[in-house]
Amino acid sequence: YPGCFSGAPVNDPMWSYFTAVAGQDGEIDSEELQRCLTQTGISGTYSPFSIETCRIMIAMLDRDMTSKMGFNEFKELFGALNVWKQNFMMFDQDRSGTVEPHEMSQAVLSMGYRISAQTLNGILKRYSKNGRIFFDDYVACCVKLRALTETFKRRDNMQQGVVNFPYDDFIMCTMAI
Amino acid sequence: YPGCFSGAPVNDPMWSYFTAVAGQDGEIDSEELQRCLTQTGISGTYSPFSIETCRIMIAMLDRDMTSKMGFNEFKELFGALNVWKQNFMMFDQDRSGTVEPHEMSQAVLSMGYRISAQTLNGILKRYSKNGRIFFDDYVACCVKLRALTETFKRRDNMQQGVVNFPYDDFIMCTMAI
Ligand SMILES: [Ca+2]
Ligand SMILES: [Ca+2]
Ligand SMILES: [Ca+2]
Repeated sequence: YPGCFSGAPVNDPMWSYFTAVAGQDGEIDSEELQRCLTQTGISGTYSPFSIETCRIMIAMLDRDMTSKMGFNEFKELFGALNVWKQNFMMFDQDRSGTVEPHEMSQAVLSMGYRISAQTLNGILKRYSKNGRIFFDDYVACCVKLRALTETFKRRDNMQQGVVNFPYDDFIMCTMAI
Repeated sequence: YPGCFSGAPVNDPMWSYFTAVAGQDGEIDSEELQRCLTQTGISGTYSPFSIETCRIMIAMLDRDMTSKMGFNEFKELFGALNVWKQNFMMFDQDRSGTVEPHEMSQAVLSMGYRISAQTLNGILKRYSKNGRIFFDDYVACCVKLRALTETFKRRDNMQQGVVNFPYDDFIMCTMAI
């Protein structure tokens, strides 16, 4: 029944924390995730995560399509968030608390994505406010870029860099994130 | 120079309104759009639009990739918003102020999108909160579905329902919205 899994990792120090956040249904929805990320202070001095970014985080990891997050997904997210936060601080070279477009270009390229200048430009415009990229939007951008790239690669069996998308599949992949 | 276009539609009653909202640069960014949509009361008794939905609205119409909105795009948006609002009220048959998943299914199908039950299900999960879809998310969903479908159709020259996406093009189309 809800909250009781076989093989629950009871010795894992994060397990009791997870169950407290998840509540009775044993899974974390976007409101619960937002509250928990705000409380853990993972944003540090940056603004707390928006509900939209929390939804994107859950969608990225939601392999069983429940729109909720289980324990393993929760741990995976914390690992990714810590990496992104370190990257954000590293690429914010002028310590302005935001990543500027030229800093973001370096960050995206350093993550290994091979995209054109035009595509990078579109991404910068979409995620910046008055020419600055805040941590919340930075994470939303990283999550989406990772999820869309994974989606693409799963279909690119021959590794040709080109995928045939039927309309329905295209909409499913892109609307869910 | 900014704010002064040749052929400005000075006799259009919306023109002076547009220039007031747009300010000195003659274009509307997401913050300006959010303020203006809140003031016009187009959301009615529903919550005001989130900044995220405002960004999606601008991205949908942003053919010149400036992340800002000119006068014609502004008028187009108001037209689309009025249609979506009417649809939302019509499909909210139990007058709960939100559209429930079965109401949303009808709404999406009535807009003429041919998508599978699985894809529809993914969309419903992504845009609902506790099983209810609020007006703000409804509009974000409509905007994205329309923009992604247009993007797909522009590439589906033979109208075969299948498009070959190179990786960079796929990322550009999907990250910008
Ligand atoms: Ca900076
Ligand atoms: Ca402006
Ligand atoms: Ca309803």
